[in-house]
Amino acid sequence: GFGAAKFMDELRAVVEANQARRKPKIPKGTRDFLPEQMAIREKAFGIITSVFKRHGAVSIDTPVFELRETLMGKYGEDSKLIYDLADQGGEILSLRYDLTVPFARFVAVHSIGNIKRYHIGKVYRRDQPQMTRGRFREFFQCDFDIAGAYAPMVADAEVLKVLVEILSDLQLGQFEIKINHRGLLDAMLAIAGVPPQKFRPICSAIDKLDKEPWEAVRQEMVVDKGLPEEVADAIGRFVVLRGEPLALLQQLTAADHPLAMNPMGKAALDDLSAMFNMLQAMGALGSLTLDLSLARGLDYYTGVIYEAVLQGANVGSIAAGGRYDKLVGMFSGKDVPAVGVSIGIERVFAIMEQQVRERAAASGRPVRAIETEVLVGSIGSGLQVRRMELCASLWAAGIRAEFGYKPNPKMADNLGFCHENGVPFMVLFGEDELSRGVVKIKDMDAHQEDTVPVEQLVPELRRRIAERSARL
Amino acid sequence: GFGAAKFMDELRAVVEANQARRKPKIPKGTRDFLPEQMAIREKAFGIITSVFKRHGAVSIDTPVFELRETLMGKYGEDSKLIYDLADQGGEILSLRYDLTVPFARFVAVHSIGNIKRYHIGKVYRRDQPQMTRGRFREFFQCDFDIAGAYAPMVADAEVLKVLVEILSDLQLGQFEIKINHRGLLDAMLAIAGVPPQKFRPICSAIDKLDKEPWEAVRQEMVVDKGLPEEVADAIGRFVVLRGEPLALLQQLTAADHPLAMNPMGKAALDDLSAMFNMLQAMGALGSLTLDLSLARGLDYYTGVIYEAVLQGANVGSIAAGGRYDKLVGMFSGKDVPAVGVSIGIERVFAIMEQQVRERAAASGRPVRAIETEVLVGSIGSGLQVRRMELCASLWAAGIRAEFGYKPNPKMADNLGFCHENGVPFMVLFGEDELSRGVVKIKDMDAHQEDTVPVEQLVPELRRRIAERSARL
Repeated sequence: GFGAAKFMDELRAVVEANQARRKPKIPKGTRDFLPEQMAIREKAFGIITSVFKRHGAVSIDTPVFELRETLMGKYGEDSKLIYDLADQGGEILSLRYDLTVPFARFVAVHSIGNIKRYHIGKVYRRDQPQMTRGRFREFFQCDFDIAGAYAPMVADAEVLKVLVEILSDLQLGQFEIKINHRGLLDAMLAIAGVPPQKFRPICSAIDKLDKEPWEAVRQEMVVDKGLPEEVADAIGRFVVLRGEPLALLQQLTAADHPLAMNPMGKAALDDLSAMFNMLQAMGALGSLTLDLSLARGLDYYTGVIYEAVLQGANVGSIAAGGRYDKLVGMFSGKDVPAVGVSIGIERVFAIMEQQVRERAAASGRPVRAIETEVLVGSIGSGLQVRRMELCASLWAAGIRAEFGYKPNPKMADNLGFCHENGVPFMVLFGEDELSRGVVKIKDMDAHQEDTVPVEQLVPELRRRIAERSARL
Repeated sequence: GFGAAKFMDELRAVVEANQARRKPKIPKGTRDFLPEQMAIREKAFGIITSVFKRHGAVSIDTPVFELRETLMGKYGEDSKLIYDLADQGGEILSLRYDLTVPFARFVAVHSIGNIKRYHIGKVYRRDQPQMTRGRFREFFQCDFDIAGAYAPMVADAEVLKVLVEILSDLQLGQFEIKINHRGLLDAMLAIAGVPPQKFRPICSAIDKLDKEPWEAVRQEMVVDKGLPEEVADAIGRFVVLRGEPLALLQQLTAADHPLAMNPMGKAALDDLSAMFNMLQAMGALGSLTLDLSLARGLDYYTGVIYEAVLQGANVGSIAAGGRYDKLVGMFSGKDVPAVGVSIGIERVFAIMEQQVRERAAASGRPVRAIETEVLVGSIGSGLQVRRMELCASLWAAGIRAEFGYKPNPKMADNLGFCHENGVPFMVLFGEDELSRGVVKIKDMDAHQEDTVPVEQLVPELRRRIAERSARL
């Protein structure tokens, strides 16, 4: 009766109140970028983009979704991680899984012969997210690729040179770039006696060597994948080969070395020799290691492959890539050879965030998300519109300025804002200054205040801002 | 028999060849950005971003998809245009429809009190695309919003000042910003005798006045929406009111004007009066028009609304926005007042592309997608690696340089590359120069060639590049 209805009303009120108070969620495996993180992200993109531009690369963009058929048959088992859009009548679409397949589709659609391009964009994988280890469902990739028919190994060498410059310029610490070649992998598997139809599964076993010991990988080869023990052991003698590129290459190219005697192996060694020669000339060989255990998962690689890791950091690879000469042809029927690298920028962000926080702590200067140079404050009340007017004259001169939003901000408000946001100058005036046609400039670093005529304000601020930026 | 089998084989071969040759498609309503378009896009973003930063705005980013429940109930009838992701087990997701609702969700999730932020990102609408008129299914929005409790109308005025600066700095030609206020609309409908439950449908009829004549809109009101003729005519006497902000405001605030006598109308007129006063102080009133026919479709506006159009260009509005004080509260249960503007950047791109093409045609300089300053060429053959080596020394000095990909490029190749891409300098050497430790610098504008010692190359190029950029 009445009691139950009242109870139901109360219950409904509680449920509705909870509903209203319940924080909205963000999709699993995704994140917002807060202003401080955006400042770091833009810094990283700025450094990377300036390397790309130094090398004459152009930028392109593609839609975030593609026809599903464009993505199908490109990623092997990982295809199950592709996000599909709902069929709402019309085309069947999926979110892009990387930037390489859209790039190949782009080259095919626009019938491009030669291009050196970069592309920074988000990609999507329905993977189990591990946010703390930098693995997201929506994340940035930052790709550089050279497509077109060029002199052998020249494009491969330039891609690696670009990678070396980026990793150096980002100042993330010591890095190592592991190099291998699909032809060398195929040759060593053939020599060891692996039947061709097992090349791919055995490669994916080898791919685990950076995480698992040889014994575990050997067991997978023998027990799970049915290799005779002596074949696995023969592979084992190859995959330990790893060293300084020119020294190891010299060893492998000795006339009686089995890899040099195998035609696929010989061709791959010639490729590597030419490429190392170019990289040496460009001063970019120092961080490279020739590593016969590097196998890279993706199907579409056809030549040199590589992977960069940071030394001492347990974050997995920070960049990876290789040559893929058959991917564009899958779309257009006409092969356009290509080589490229993809930088795992999320890990770069995480490291840079840490560095920025440490530097801010050491210097006592806050991490700045805004670049405001001047806060316009006033003394006394009723001057909001006059502050806005003065601010407009600074904006017109290209000076980054704010006027504060409180109608009558107190000095403590102004000082607090400048300290929190690292704003170096404050401009102040009251009725008295207005009547005399002057304003005060407060230098927050020097704790000094000067009075200048209003008409001198812009040149004076410009001078001080330039001086300060030269000093820092 | 045999003939049929042979025919089938031939048919299959033809089908497969067609399949292979068939160009892959790009989803309907989307587009790729080619390098020249990217250069323009980056220029536009650079101009806009620098205005935002001048005003102390921070940048944020949100995922491209949100939980579907986040988007539901925010867009009225337009909800049917939202792209849903397939239910692949897990959360129910949709692509973002604008940047305003994700921003409100962001403010609620991160419990933000005050923020002045910009966000440039792609949004998605399953609308009928009209590519030639700049209407896409995937397109950029460029939003600036101020959220938090500030002194009345101050944030509204700054948003409009930012819009005026952006439209001026983009140099798109004469523009007009139409202003109205939800309170003024509600007051005029109440005064005309529209029942409150019909405010919204009548507003969306008024919203069509920029495309349709009053007679058509009046007919919709009377025939489709059941307004008495005299009520429609009373609305008709309001919506023709349009003029220079301060002059029209003076007329409307006369003590005996019905809008000034209505409490909602009076409050809205007070808001506008305060805001126009601030905009005048900031020198940003010149391009504004107070226009009582402006109605804006979206449900969430609660105060001032505005829309910018380019004069003479028939591309619809180029920016729009307003105050929405209740949207954040829909997520957190706690209102955070907010005001903002969204710039329809696709139309800006289209206009800038046209301008850039015209300027390129007039100046005879190509539209540059690359920023390469120096092409390193060689005389004679076999110098590929030496070119790469020299290029590396330029990169190390921060000079934008390329070495060409042909093993033995001819002079015609080099000249062609420089002309096509607007590369201003060429560095040349052959065996003779190498043995003498010199290189040639060719100035493409001056058609002049000088020989300098290799160790002088970097400072000499730097000097010439700086000189040239000062000259242009």
